[in-house]
Amino acid sequence: MSGSTFGKLFRVTTWGESHGAAIGAVIDGCPAGLSLCENDIQLFLDRRKPGQNKYTTKRNESDQVEILSGLFDGKTTGTPISLLVRNQDQRSHDYGNIAYTYRPGHADYTFTEKYGFRDYRGGGRSSGRETIGRVAGGAVASLLLEEMGIKLVSYAKSIGPVSISPQDYVFSEINENDLYMPNNEAAAKAALHLDDLMGNLDSCGGTIECMVTGLPLGLGEPVFDKLDASLAKAVMSIGAVKAVEIGDGIDSALSTGSQNNDEFGSAEGKIYKRTNHSGGVLGGISDGSPLLLRASVKPTASISQLQHTVTESGEETDLCIHGRHDPIIVPRAVVVVESMTALALADLLLENMTSRLDRVKAYYRK
Amino acid sequence: MSGSTFGKLFRVTTWGESHGAAIGAVIDGCPAGLSLCENDIQLFLDRRKPGQNKYTTKRNESDQVEILSGLFDGKTTGTPISLLVRNQDQRSHDYGNIAYTYRPGHADYTFTEKYGFRDYRGGGRSSGRETIGRVAGGAVASLLLEEMGIKLVSYAKSIGPVSISPQDYVFSEINENDLYMPNNEAAAKAALHLDDLMGNLDSCGGTIECMVTGLPLGLGEPVFDKLDASLAKAVMSIGAVKAVEIGDGIDSALSTGSQNNDEFGSAEGKIYKRTNHSGGVLGGISDGSPLLLRASVKPTASISQLQHTVTESGEETDLCIHGRHDPIIVPRAVVVVESMTALALADLLLENMTSRLDRVKAYYRK
Amino acid sequence: MSGSTFGKLFRVTTWGESHGAAIGAVIDGCPAGLSLCENDIQLFLDRRKPGQNKYTTKRNESDQVEILSGLFDGKTTGTPISLLVRNQDQRSHDYGNIAYTYRPGHADYTFTEKYGFRDYRGGGRSSGRETIGRVAGGAVASLLLEEMGIKLVSYAKSIGPVSISPQDYVFSEINENDLYMPNNEAAAKAALHLDDLMGNLDSCGGTIECMVTGLPLGLGEPVFDKLDASLAKAVMSIGAVKAVEIGDGIDSALSTGSQNNDEFGSAEGKIYKRTNHSGGVLGGISDGSPLLLRASVKPTASISQLQHTVTESGEETDLCIHGRHDPIIVPRAVVVVESMTALALADLLLENMTSRLDRVKAYYRK
Amino acid sequence: MSGSTFGKLFRVTTWGESHGAAIGAVIDGCPAGLSLCENDIQLFLDRRKPGQNKYTTKRNESDQVEILSGLFDGKTTGTPISLLVRNQDQRSHDYGNIAYTYRPGHADYTFTEKYGFRDYRGGGRSSGRETIGRVAGGAVASLLLEEMGIKLVSYAKSIGPVSISPQDYVFSEINENDLYMPNNEAAAKAALHLDDLMGNLDSCGGTIECMVTGLPLGLGEPVFDKLDASLAKAVMSIGAVKAVEIGDGIDSALSTGSQNNDEFGSAEGKIYKRTNHSGGVLGGISDGSPLLLRASVKPTASISQLQHTVTESGEETDLCIHGRHDPIIVPRAVVVVESMTALALADLLLENMTSRLDRVKAYYRK
Repeated sequence: MSGSTFGKLFRVTTWGESHGAAIGAVIDGCPAGLSLCENDIQLFLDRRKPGQNKYTTKRNESDQVEILSGLFDGKTTGTPISLLVRNQDQRSHDYGNIAYTYRPGHADYTFTEKYGFRDYRGGGRSSGRETIGRVAGGAVASLLLEEMGIKLVSYAKSIGPVSISPQDYVFSEINENDLYMPNNEAAAKAALHLDDLMGNLDSCGGTIECMVTGLPLGLGEPVFDKLDASLAKAVMSIGAVKAVEIGDGIDSALSTGSQNNDEFGSAEGKIYKRTNHSGGVLGGISDGSPLLLRASVKPTASISQLQHTVTESGEETDLCIHGRHDPIIVPRAVVVVESMTALALADLLLENMTSRLDRVKAYYRK
Repeated sequence: MSGSTFGKLFRVTTWGESHGAAIGAVIDGCPAGLSLCENDIQLFLDRRKPGQNKYTTKRNESDQVEILSGLFDGKTTGTPISLLVRNQDQRSHDYGNIAYTYRPGHADYTFTEKYGFRDYRGGGRSSGRETIGRVAGGAVASLLLEEMGIKLVSYAKSIGPVSISPQDYVFSEINENDLYMPNNEAAAKAALHLDDLMGNLDSCGGTIECMVTGLPLGLGEPVFDKLDASLAKAVMSIGAVKAVEIGDGIDSALSTGSQNNDEFGSAEGKIYKRTNHSGGVLGGISDGSPLLLRASVKPTASISQLQHTVTESGEETDLCIHGRHDPIIVPRAVVVVESMTALALADLLLENMTSRLDRVKAYYRK
Repeated sequence: MSGSTFGKLFRVTTWGESHGAAIGAVIDGCPAGLSLCENDIQLFLDRRKPGQNKYTTKRNESDQVEILSGLFDGKTTGTPISLLVRNQDQRSHDYGNIAYTYRPGHADYTFTEKYGFRDYRGGGRSSGRETIGRVAGGAVASLLLEEMGIKLVSYAKSIGPVSISPQDYVFSEINENDLYMPNNEAAAKAALHLDDLMGNLDSCGGTIECMVTGLPLGLGEPVFDKLDASLAKAVMSIGAVKAVEIGDGIDSALSTGSQNNDEFGSAEGKIYKRTNHSGGVLGGISDGSPLLLRASVKPTASISQLQHTVTESGEETDLCIHGRHDPIIVPRAVVVVESMTALALADLLLENMTSRLDRVKAYYRK
Repeated sequence: MSGSTFGKLFRVTTWGESHGAAIGAVIDGCPAGLSLCENDIQLFLDRRKPGQNKYTTKRNESDQVEILSGLFDGKTTGTPISLLVRNQDQRSHDYGNIAYTYRPGHADYTFTEKYGFRDYRGGGRSSGRETIGRVAGGAVASLLLEEMGIKLVSYAKSIGPVSISPQDYVFSEINENDLYMPNNEAAAKAALHLDDLMGNLDSCGGTIECMVTGLPLGLGEPVFDKLDASLAKAVMSIGAVKAVEIGDGIDSALSTGSQNNDEFGSAEGKIYKRTNHSGGVLGGISDGSPLLLRASVKPTASISQLQHTVTESGEETDLCIHGRHDPIIVPRAVVVVESMTALALADLLLENMTSRLDRVKAYYRK
C-alpha cells in the first residue's frame, strides 16, 4: 500500500510483477538538462539480467528498456521519466502446488495475510524481478551523480564462506568474473563452493559492499533523514538483505573511542580525516571521506530440496520447488545495492542545496 | 533541513539543542482515545536520564516532561500532542577551544560545512540530548502498541567484549543492573571492563537488541516502506548506531538456504514458523513470529585522552575534551532504540489498516 | 520537479507529454480486492477524448488504456496499478514559430525559465493531454468510492454567459448534450454562443460543479489536510482552473451568520443539517451533507486570432496559432474535475480509518 | 490525524488548542543564517491578537511568543525552530450547554463524529486560536522571502457589502484603519455596517486579498504541486475560507480568450506580461508578474442570536451562545492569509532550486 515510491525530491516509483505484462519505474524530480538515452539504463539492467552464467536463473528475458516520457532532444526535461520493461517469459505455467502452498523463506504467507490473496505467479510483486524498477531508477540517479563527479563502485565482498579483505581488493577485476568479486582468485574459490551447493540443491548468502567517492560534504538531513539512515532504508528495502552496515559497522561495537575516532588532519588548506572508521558519515552528514556501506544478503529461498511447509488452508505438507534457481542472489544484487545507494544520494544531494541562506540568495541572484 | 519528522501517519517531529532553552516533540496522528499522562512519558525519559550511575554523565537534569496539547480528560483527542522538556543545566560555559576546534568522531565538522556555522554549545542539535524527543514520542507510540497487545523488550546484548548469548538471556534481570543487560553476571563483567576503560580515559561500544512480541501479521508496505526497511531507517538515524540487523542479520550471509529458510507448521488451526531466522519479517511484512532487531553502537566519541585534530580554519592542533562523559552510550541508548522501533511500528500499524477492500468496507459500514 | 504525485495513502503518479510516446499513471495504495478492468477506466477516458463533437479538437486519438500491473484474476492486488495510453497522433509536425515563440496564456515562457528549455511539441507536459493520467487515476478512485456507496455527479454549470441555476438542474440530461450541462435547453443556448465565438476565432470559459453524495462523516485531516483544502489543491492543480469554491463559495462573503449557519435537526435518531451553505464540510471534515465544489475555468488559451507576443530571445512579434482548437475547455474538463475530486476523497477516506483508538483496536481484533 | 504539517522542504507543524496550556509551531527546513528574533514573530502575532478594537473578541491574551530552539547568535542554525505561545485566558469556565450541544457553523459535530469525542473548551483545536501557529510560522517564512526581495501585501478587499475596487486601493492606509482595508473611507463605511450587525447580534463575511511582488520566475512544481494549487490548499485550510481565486478568478469564467490571454512584451531586454489576468501564474509556475490571490471568508459562526440545533444525543434544542464574539473574522484573518501564502511560497522557493542540472552543478562547484 503506497510504499512504492522512494525519495523526496529525486523520487522513483516502481511497479510491476514477475509474470505481469511489464515492469517499470517513473522517476520524478530529475533536474532538467541531463543527457540520457535508453542505452544508459540498459547497461545497468544488463548487470542484473538473468541467464548471464550458470549461477543465474535461465529465465529467458532480454529486459529491454523503453523510455516513454521526460526526454526531449536527448535531455531530461524536468518532467517525469517513465521507463518500461516488457516481461517476455510470462507463458502460462502450471503453478501447481505453489499456488496454494507457502514457500519457506518467501513472502507468500505474508502477502496473503496482508492483502487477502496474492498473485502467486512467480512471486508476483515480491519477486526479484521487482528490482528492475530500482535498477532503472538507479541508472538515472547514477548519471546525475556522475555529473557531480561522484563515483560508485559495488561488488560482492563475500559469497558463502569466501570473503575478501580490503587489502586484497582489485577493483579492476570486478567485471572480470561471473560473481562481481574484486578478486578473481577469490571468485574462483567461491565458484567452486557454488558448484558444491548446486550439487546439494542448496543455496548460500553473501555480502555486498558499495563505496562512493567524490561525494560532496554536507549530504544528509538530521535527525531522521540522515545520510546513513536514508541509506539503511534504501538498502534494507531490497528483498533478502538482512543487515546494513556503515563504515566499520558491527565491528565498531568492539572498538574503543581512541581507536574508532577518526583524527582530522589538514593538507594544502583542506581538512581531511586520517582514517575512515566512520565510513564517510559524521552526525548523519557526509564527511568528505569515501562512503562505505555493506549489505548482508541471505541465501536464495528457492531451493530444490524437499521442504516442510503448510498450505493456505493450514494443512502441513512437503514442497518441492521445481525449476532452476540462482544458487546465490548476491552477484545480480550488486547492481541493486548500487542503484538504491545512488537513489538515496541523488535525493539528499538535491535537498542539501537548500541548507544555507547565503546559497539560496546566491541562487536567486542569478 | 526538514529532516526532523519521522513517520507518515503516526508522526513525530522533534526539536531542540543540548544547551537551548528546551527540547521537545510534537506527535501528530495518534488515534483519539488513548489514555495518556505525563508519568507515562516520564517513565521512558527516566530510562535515558543522565546521572543514573557512575557510567553516565553527571549532567544535572531532571528531564521533567510537560504535555502542552492534544489531551482532554486524560485521553488523546486526535490532535497534535506537544511535549516539552526544559533544559536546566545550560549555564554559561566557557566552551574554549571546543568552539573552534573539530572534535574527532563528532558532527562539528559536518554541521559547520553543511550549515555555514554551528551551535557549538554541547554539540547543539547533534548532542545525545536530541534523543529526548525520540523517547518522548516513543513512549506514546509504545502505549498505542500496548493497547494492541504488542510488547517490546530491549536490552544491551553486548558491551565491549562482553556479549550475552540468547540462551543466557534472563529478561527479568534487565532492570536489575546499571547496564540494562539481560544477565546480571555478564553485566558485572561488563562493569569491570568499563572501570578499566575509564581508568584509561577511553570508551567502548556495544550492541542493543529489541524484541517485539504480539505483533499482528501484515505490517510493512512493500516495496520501499517495508517493515525491515522502516526499522533500519528508524534505528540507523540514532547517533552512534553503525549497523542494523534483522533476525540472523549478518550471520545469514554465512548460512545456506536449507538452514536459513524457516519451515511453516500448523497447530490448532494456526500457521506458525518453526524457526525464526527471518526475525519476524518476510517480504518486508511482519510474519507473526517475534520481531528481532539489533543495533551496533560505536564507542562514545567524547574521550578525555589527548586527540589530534584541526581548527575551523584548518590548523592542526591537539585537543583535550574536559568534563565527565559516559564511557559507553549503550545503556542509555537502549530506550532510544526501543522508542524508534515503537515509532516505526505504530506508523505501519496504522497504514496497514487500509490494505484490504473488505476491511475498508467493514470499517465504513459501522 | 517531483510534483507529479498526488495523495498520501491513495496515491497517483502521472507522466507523459502531448507528443511523447505515451501518457500514463501509476496508482499506489489502492486496497486489494477491488474489481477492475480496462473498460472501467476507458469509460472515464472516453469522457475527455478529443473529437467527440464540433467543440472539441479533431486530434485523432483513441486513447485506449492498457493495465500493466496490479491486477490478478480481475481484482486489484494491493500493488501499484500501472496504466498506459499510447499517443497515436504524434507525427512529426513542423512546429514552426511555436518552437521559439511564447504563446500568450500558455506555459511556454514559465517552463523555459524554470527548466532551461522545453519540449515545445504540443505543449509537452503542460498540454491538456496530461490530464489523461488524472482521469485514469480518478476512474480507479471512483470505483473505490462507489464500493462505499459514494456517488459523484459533475457537470458544466456555466459556459460563457450561459449559467444554470440549481433549481433548473436536470441531472439526467447531463449526458444528453455535447456540453455536459444539466439542462439541455441551456446547453443549446451555450452551443449557439460557442458557434458565434468560433466564428470570431475566439474562446470562452465556464464553471464546473461536482456534487458528492453518500460521503461518510469524518473525512478530512485538520488542520492543513482538511477536506476542503485537499479538494482545493486537487482541483486548482488542473490547468486553466482559476478559482475553487466550496458550498456557497464566494457568496458566503456576502452572507450573514444568521443566514449562513446551517441549523442542525434530527430525524429518526439521525442528525442532519437543514440547509447546506457549508457544502458538506465543517471544520475541514465532511459533515454528512452532500459535498459541493465549483471550479472556474478560464477560456482556452489557444485561439486563432493574431496575438502579440515575444520570442525566446525577447523580440516582439505577432503570432498566429494554426490548427483547430477547442473553443471551450469546460466540457472535456468535467471528468477531470470529477477525477481529482475522487482522488482527494479516496485518499482521505483511507486516512480517516486511523482516527479513533477503539476502531484501530476493533480492526486488529479481527 | 497527521494533518498538522504544511510544506515539503520549508515545513511548519502546528499544535495547540484554544483552552490548553499553550499553542505553538515547529518550523523545520528554514535555511541556516537567517536573522531572527522574537520581535520579528511578535509583529505578526500582534496583527491577529484579540482585543485590538471593538470588532474583535475581548479575550484577554497578550500572545507573547517564545523561541525555544533553532537559533544561535541571533541566526537560524538550520535545525527546527520551536515557537511557543502560552494561553493565559484559560480559566475554568462553565461551558454549560456548549459541552453537549452542536453549535451551527462550527466543527463540534464533525470533530465528535471523527474522533469519538471532542475538547469542547472554546472549540479546542478547531478554534481560531489554532491560527497562532500558522502566523508564527508565516512570520519566519516572510523573513526568508524578504531576504529574496519578495514582498507580500494583504488586506481586506471587502467586508459585507462594502467592497473596494483595485483602482481605489491606497495601500498606505491598510494599517490606518481597524479593518485592514486599503481605503480608509471604505473602512469607515464597513465599520458602520458592522455596528448595525452587532446591534442585530449578527455577523458578516468578506474578502481578503494578498499581492506578492518580487517573486522570482519558476516557482511551482507541475503537475500537482503547482504554485496556484499549493496556494489554494494553504489558504483553503484556514477555517472560514470558502473560496480561493487566483488572478481574475471566477471572472475568468466569463472572459474570452482574446481578453484573458496576457500578451507578452519586451523592454530593456526583459520579457514581461502586458496585463496580469493570470495573477502571476502560468502553467502552475510563477510568471514574473505580481501574484494575486483572493480568499472569500464566511461570516463568523458564533452569533448571539438564538439558533436551532441538536445535542450530542440527537435531541433538538435552541442554543444561545454567550460572550462577545468578533462580528467579522476578516480583519484578524488578513495576516493568516498572508502567513499561509508566505509558507507556500517559501516551500516552493526552496524546491525550485533543484530544477536545472546546470544550476545543481554550479551549486556544488562552489
